Amino acid sequence: MTALAEARTARRGGRGARRELRTLRVADMLPALRRGLPVIEPMLREQVELIDSASMDILEEVGVVFRDPRALDDWRGAGADVRGERVHLERGLVRELIATIPATITLHARNPERSVQLGGPNSIFVPMTGAPYVRDLEDRRRAPTLDDLAMFHKLAHMAPALHSTAHHIVEPMDHVVAHRHLRITYSSMKHSDKTFMGMTTSPRNAEDVLDMCAILFGSDFMETHAVVTGNCNGNSPLVWDEVMLGAMRAFCRRNQPVLCSPFVLGGANTPASTAPAVAQLNAEALAALAYTQVVRRGCPAIYGHYLSTVSMATGAPMAGTPEISLMNFMIGQMARHYGVPWRTSNTLGGAKTLDAQAGYESATTMMAVLLSGANYIWHSAGWNEGGMHCSVAKFVVDAEQCAMGYRMAEGIRWDDFGEALAAVRDIGPGGHYLGHPHTQANFQRAFFMPKLLDNAAFEQWVAEGSREITARALAEARAMLAAYEEPKLPEDVDEALRDYIARREREIPAVDALNQEY
Amino acid sequence: MTALAEARTARRGGRGARRELRTLRVADMLPALRRGLPVIEPMLREQVELIDSASMDILEEVGVVFRDPRALDDWRGAGADVRGERVHLERGLVRELIATIPATITLHARNPERSVQLGGPNSIFVPMTGAPYVRDLEDRRRAPTLDDLAMFHKLAHMAPALHSTAHHIVEPMDHVVAHRHLRITYSSMKHSDKTFMGMTTSPRNAEDVLDMCAILFGSDFMETHAVVTGNCNGNSPLVWDEVMLGAMRAFCRRNQPVLCSPFVLGGANTPASTAPAVAQLNAEALAALAYTQVVRRGCPAIYGHYLSTVSMATGAPMAGTPEISLMNFMIGQMARHYGVPWRTSNTLGGAKTLDAQAGYESATTMMAVLLSGANYIWHSAGWNEGGMHCSVAKFVVDAEQCAMGYRMAEGIRWDDFGEALAAVRDIGPGGHYLGHPHTQANFQRAFFMPKLLDNAAFEQWVAEGSREITARALAEARAMLAAYEEPKLPEDVDEALRDYIARREREIPAVDALNQEY
Repeated sequence: MTALAEARTARRGGRGARRELRTLRVADMLPALRRGLPVIEPMLREQVELIDSASMDILEEVGVVFRDPRALDDWRGAGADVRGERVHLERGLVRELIATIPATITLHARNPERSVQLGGPNSIFVPMTGAPYVRDLEDRRRAPTLDDLAMFHKLAHMAPALHSTAHHIVEPMDHVVAHRHLRITYSSMKHSDKTFMGMTTSPRNAEDVLDMCAILFGSDFMETHAVVTGNCNGNSPLVWDEVMLGAMRAFCRRNQPVLCSPFVLGGANTPASTAPAVAQLNAEALAALAYTQVVRRGCPAIYGHYLSTVSMATGAPMAGTPEISLMNFMIGQMARHYGVPWRTSNTLGGAKTLDAQAGYESATTMMAVLLSGANYIWHSAGWNEGGMHCSVAKFVVDAEQCAMGYRMAEGIRWDDFGEALAAVRDIGPGGHYLGHPHTQANFQRAFFMPKLLDNAAFEQWVAEGSREITARALAEARAMLAAYEEPKLPEDVDEALRDYIARREREIPAVDALNQEY
Repeated sequence: MTALAEARTARRGGRGARRELRTLRVADMLPALRRGLPVIEPMLREQVELIDSASMDILEEVGVVFRDPRALDDWRGAGADVRGERVHLERGLVRELIATIPATITLHARNPERSVQLGGPNSIFVPMTGAPYVRDLEDRRRAPTLDDLAMFHKLAHMAPALHSTAHHIVEPMDHVVAHRHLRITYSSMKHSDKTFMGMTTSPRNAEDVLDMCAILFGSDFMETHAVVTGNCNGNSPLVWDEVMLGAMRAFCRRNQPVLCSPFVLGGANTPASTAPAVAQLNAEALAALAYTQVVRRGCPAIYGHYLSTVSMATGAPMAGTPEISLMNFMIGQMARHYGVPWRTSNTLGGAKTLDAQAGYESATTMMAVLLSGANYIWHSAGWNEGGMHCSVAKFVVDAEQCAMGYRMAEGIRWDDFGEALAAVRDIGPGGHYLGHPHTQANFQRAFFMPKLLDNAAFEQWVAEGSREITARALAEARAMLAAYEEPKLPEDVDEALRDYIARREREIPAVDALNQEY
């Protein structure tokens, strides 16, 4: 039974719901997670105010570098104190600007049934992106192709708890860099009718993505509806660069939400201490969030971050460490303090294979992320090796883990409490419940049954081939791909998109690709 | 650097602390975890009262079977309504009895520096127990011996975040069942000076354990100090049997804490629904907790449970499922409502090897357990295959994960906040922190550096032999064992213990072993 089926049953209950299960499609999607569990808030109100105040001091007194003449002009126009490239932002101005960021965003999919809301108690799971290597259906590590990307978009389409296909889950290395953003965007649009992300690798690339969105959704619709998210990374400490700011403007101008994501390697580009690192990260995020509102008042924006701590031994980013969990809890409090939806990263890890390390790191991260109340839960499937590869096996395992985390975060059901207590009286001491009508009616929805976690006895597991989870997950991925049905684009839209790509590929010199910053 | 070293540095700070690091022994132990993070409490006060009221209704109206004539007599004497084997307990009587259970317990080790407090915000990590198989230093699955048990006791002794060596981590299959409890207890006492657990496999075995404790600690000391814990499982639904109740009485009479642990297979021996399952479990735990106070008013006791949900497909217990996390959160609220220390199970899982499944299940469980506020965190190292084997590799990985979880649960440090913000001003936009004095002074304590999680680049990992975590963990286990130093028992105590065992082994017929209930 899919998690969706279970969720629907939970909502509707009874005999009708059980009938409904038989007609559900595998690729059905869970609605955005509506959190029913409380979140972990490790800071007292005064401590939240302390972080806020420290961040505001940084913005006012240290300032933030915007390496972009246009942004500096914009900031002068907005009344900021600009000295060279350094923008000093008074706390009053920052608070005034971020106040117009909407607290929730409805992210529209081309299939309206798959539109999702994020912000407040609502969260969505988005797969990983940006991997220069794939671990493929044979678990071989190699350079990925556009076909590999399509495969991941299909898997994301099929996974009930993933709400988005993202964009370049893997880098399609068989296409020149300068043209990739077009092919990536088309792949997201074609292989799924869920929401997706837009490339921000340059301001012009962002415009291409947004033009393609306009073909898919219509420019007018986009003026009032969010249809695509773009991620813009800051260069910690306290720098935003021209490429990211240009892409940010492209998204904001068309009223599309940008993730304002300081890129934090704790101890390398922040102080070596969690609370001060969060104060710096918070200042960086606020500066960019405020800038989105300078570009266009009221446009949606998302408080983002990429967060790791750095190994003192190797300089490598780590994942699943206690301080990352603590910082996620703290950042959640800050974002809620400002009333802005926020993004975090899920299932991160540094393992080179889908071994137990990957499991420990990913699950620790997911639990922290779920209990921090993050709204835009990115990198939720496939990430391994510090983001250097996306693993097919891990992708489907993570997707199931998201469905399990979803169930946990929904919280406790009380609707059958009286009925179940009557069963306790029926059964009495020493009995068993398997045959009781309440058990029969509720078992399927009561307890999540993971498909990829094997709980059979050792002897049975041996009889079935002693397969570890990687082998089982790859078999599941093949089964999902065999069952995949393309949610066809309307013929005219598809043609318009392909025309746009063909034209732009003629216009953008492929030879420039190798020189392009990426 | 050991987690202890980091903790000590955190407490003392500065140059002196760094000097101290150089002199620390590997086998140093972290103090009991004092939780600084808030817990997840998914129930409103009324919902806590609803569970309480449902449990009390069960105790009054359905009753609990005590399959033990002596317990029935005790209950009659205490004023309960006993009908056959079924004891109906009025809520007033239950509340009066559990009110005398101490809210905290100091568990004394033979080395006073290793005594620990549990209850309230204080928690301890205890390794797994009861495995009939071992995955050994070659990762081979086989029947364990007493030497294997000694090895695990040594590893538990060496792991800074483990506060106990427990008892039969693995079953010493090379000794007759009837004599095992003696050998197991001696192994715990001999190989470590941390706290340990006592076997409860029969009332007489429990007496042997307690007699051995009297040799080690003195009977008078035990009258006023807890030195050993015993676990007693209930047979859900709503039955406590003669063996467990007899062992429970042995512990209570000597004022030693018993874990009162209903054994819950959600959906099989409880209703198929989380909240009602918790109501039943709570009734079962309360019945046993109340009974400890009938045996001896004021003796310490621990609210326990073993908790899994059952696979509808195979009937096998599952781990790391969302409902188990939710039930842990709820049980924590109930135990705090009654003011009684409580036990849960950590790092459970059903994987047959230390593959990614084991990692996902274990880490999910650990995060839920830490954020539920459990005090006695049992099965914290080595558990796999639903408890059927203890894995050496997983034991050391889990022990490190406990140290990481410990750090997270301690919460946020604020002591260097101002100093670190000064570093932000020093560094300014675009700089880096690695060379800053604050970083140099704080890096070691700021971010946990897991030894067994490899975050190196792929190429380096390949150059080092492409070792997955299992191989790395087995190498670490070998290194720990090579560095192990036995904390010698006083010669006269050791001799008295060996004399006791020799006498009891003469008295207990080995031939009876095979007929003994186990």
